[in-house]
Amino acid sequence: MQYSSAAMEQAISELSKLPGIGRKSAQRLVFHLLKASNTEVQGLANALLAMKEKICFCTVCFNITEVDPCQICTSVTRDRGTICVVEEANDVLAIEKTGEYKGLYHVLGGALSPLEGVGPDDLHIRDLLTRLNGSTNEIILATNPNTEGEATALYLEKLIKPLEIKMTRIARGLPVGSAIEYADEITLTRALEGRMPV
Amino acid sequence: MQYSSAAMEQAISELSKLPGIGRKSAQRLVFHLLKASNTEVQGLANALLAMKEKICFCTVCFNITEVDPCQICTSVTRDRGTICVVEEANDVLAIEKTGEYKGLYHVLGGALSPLEGVGPDDLHIRDLLTRLNGSTNEIILATNPNTEGEATALYLEKLIKPLEIKMTRIARGLPVGSAIEYADEITLTRALEGRMPV
Repeated sequence: MQYSSAAMEQAISELSKLPGIGRKSAQRLVFHLLKASNTEVQGLANALLAMKEKICFCTVCFNITEVDPCQICTSVTRDRGTICVVEEANDVLAIEKTGEYKGLYHVLGGALSPLEGVGPDDLHIRDLLTRLNGSTNEIILATNPNTEGEATALYLEKLIKPLEIKMTRIARGLPVGSAIEYADEITLTRALEGRMPV
Repeated sequence: MQYSSAAMEQAISELSKLPGIGRKSAQRLVFHLLKASNTEVQGLANALLAMKEKICFCTVCFNITEVDPCQICTSVTRDRGTICVVEEANDVLAIEKTGEYKGLYHVLGGALSPLEGVGPDDLHIRDLLTRLNGSTNEIILATNPNTEGEATALYLEKLIKPLEIKMTRIARGLPVGSAIEYADEITLTRALEGRMPV
């Protein structure tokens, strides 16, 4: 549906560019914003601009941050010998939420995906290699447990192996609270492979 | 999950206020915007502000417009004797898309809903009554065919009846392309009630 108002058409088209928002959802958002107060719309627009202006990527670990290098990279209380390699910045936040991990991170910025044209040079893999020095004791490969994530972990494994640094991969198994009966075959296979002494 | 960046937290909280966007979706949007170019984010923010600045509500029919009164209300080619009463401005756009209707509109701004605290005074019902004059031949009640919409139509029917203006309600029946087998009982009842001579 084309609108007679160019301003409205423009807003709908801009909102439709966002992931998970189609033209119909964009229309609904626009109608909501038209009914909302001016302050609300300005609040939203300014928050987006302020966020974009203030937040940058850490030049060491490529996590998002307001100061460069980021608070994790400059922290004196964290274990600088461990680097956890993840695909995206939201993975860092998910791991931080557990409160269990005290090392550093390295955000790749995605996963290898030949189908989508993402090769090693599109990720921060070279930057990871330059970070590795005598003080690195362990690299945790925490890419997603899907095809792209596993391929990326395998690629990193082969690349880092010659450096003789300890490498680990996060465990794949049954999620806590789930039931064996409903688990898929691959997850169950990984859960059996990764069984631990009790 | 709380973020260390206040700017990011603010953007997430503003986006979560939009209908159909929860905190998780807002997070995904924010991560998308952080990866997007500055121009893209500015484009989005400016489109929203421009839309809000340019678009207002027509003081006659309460449809959204860039000029007040709106193009439909001031049109000389449209049938000024017919007023189609709808709940929201997007209903106007949906009806305009058919290209079949040549009369005027009146946007109520919602439907009666005692549960949500929406009473007659919250809608543009009084404004509708003041629009009605000797030249109004027909009022088409095109509120949604759901509980609130039907209640609103019934309310308007009783209110306008003493004025002795012809009132019609849009037909409820089977959607084109559907099958009787899968139609719900109420729709089928309405389809039978509204049967037309062939």
